[in-house]
Amino acid sequence: MIVLSHCVSARSLRPLWMLEELGLPYELRMLPFPPRMHARSYLDLNPLGTVPLLEDGATRMTESAAMCHYLAARHSPGVLDVPVHESTYGAYLNWLHMSDATLTFPQTLVLRYTHFEPPERQQPQVASDYARWFLARLRAVDAAVQHNDYLCAGRFTAADVAVGYALLLARHLGLDAQFTPAVAAYWQRLQDRPAFLRALRVEQEAAQAQGVDPTPSPDLRF
Amino acid sequence: MIVLSHCVSARSLRPLWMLEELGLPYELRMLPFPPRMHARSYLDLNPLGTVPLLEDGATRMTESAAMCHYLAARHSPGVLDVPVHESTYGAYLNWLHMSDATLTFPQTLVLRYTHFEPPERQQPQVASDYARWFLARLRAVDAAVQHNDYLCAGRFTAADVAVGYALLLARHLGLDAQFTPAVAAYWQRLQDRPAFLRALRVEQEAAQAQGVDPTPSPDLRF
Repeated sequence: MIVLSHCVSARSLRPLWMLEELGLPYELRMLPFPPRMHARSYLDLNPLGTVPLLEDGATRMTESAAMCHYLAARHSPGVLDVPVHESTYGAYLNWLHMSDATLTFPQTLVLRYTHFEPPERQQPQVASDYARWFLARLRAVDAAVQHNDYLCAGRFTAADVAVGYALLLARHLGLDAQFTPAVAAYWQRLQDRPAFLRALRVEQEAAQAQGVDPTPSPDLRF
Repeated sequence: MIVLSHCVSARSLRPLWMLEELGLPYELRMLPFPPRMHARSYLDLNPLGTVPLLEDGATRMTESAAMCHYLAARHSPGVLDVPVHESTYGAYLNWLHMSDATLTFPQTLVLRYTHFEPPERQQPQVASDYARWFLARLRAVDAAVQHNDYLCAGRFTAADVAVGYALLLARHLGLDAQFTPAVAAYWQRLQDRPAFLRALRVEQEAAQAQGVDPTPSPDLRF
């Protein structure tokens, strides 16, 4: 049984959404945010204190985009995955990595230095620098979905789940007002997916059942 | 023929090192740093203006850790790659993603806000926040190499190249003084690899041959 440790709205939504897309059985372990402070025993499972943590037998993973890749390759080869021999394999890998390193991390700076830090440590300049940085890199998504429904391979893949989370985070931060029409339409296609809607419902239900505050806490990687 | 666009010491050292590990033929296109400002025609090739850019037939990639994965899977299956069916596949993916999203991006903040910005835009608090952030995440590397020569799969893989660049960047920033003994020994093993040394030599020779300043400019992803 796959076990996913998750905080509401955190990057761990990526593997949760993947699990719903694949229809796999799994256990969802909800944690208060940030677990480092409010669930100290979690550090025994993941010494970094970050979510997500994905446990699948002896496999333990902490990187959300890598989990999308892993679940697709192990549990739906050739469907949500793009296999090595396909011509778009390189593009698929590139989107998976870009989703977090290039499209999510800059937004965590906006979040941290405008929302999570106390007033005396807030940094409007840094938040502005990285909002601009994110929007500049988002041009790659705009170019990809100008004439395609999804990012690569002519179909919905794990790369769309991984990039989709970056767009959700942008919505939390109000940066979606600056999406181009093509990006906004792509983001709407992702939001319309039944598995995305199920993932959002499942996290709310699990939070309430497990006594965790169901209010979104968009990210906790800092 | 694979073509790699590269600036001295930038993330593009990852695929350059991989190409040397694999002994593949390639063309190295050296660019002045940052190409956005000093090589405007590069924007026709890569509208993001970032390095690296890897071109391999119709494949075009911009994410350095994804390139390590791609080159290993396409050009050395089962050697520098960890195939899907191997038990450590999940760990391998996790290290590849962690190398950039978790171990490199925080260091680019240190670099930007202590070195590259003009004095009035420098941010010592942010640099300190993310130096600490990087060192906290580096504990995962420490745990992995306490009793193993390499990160996963019991052998040297593309994941070591990807993480190795993060350690090189830490050296440029002086953060290597805080490496644990296990991380320092691992980093020494990586530096001793003939392909790593060849990559450093090749970039210097190519910079001089192509009229580009051979001084290191560690990163340009901002």
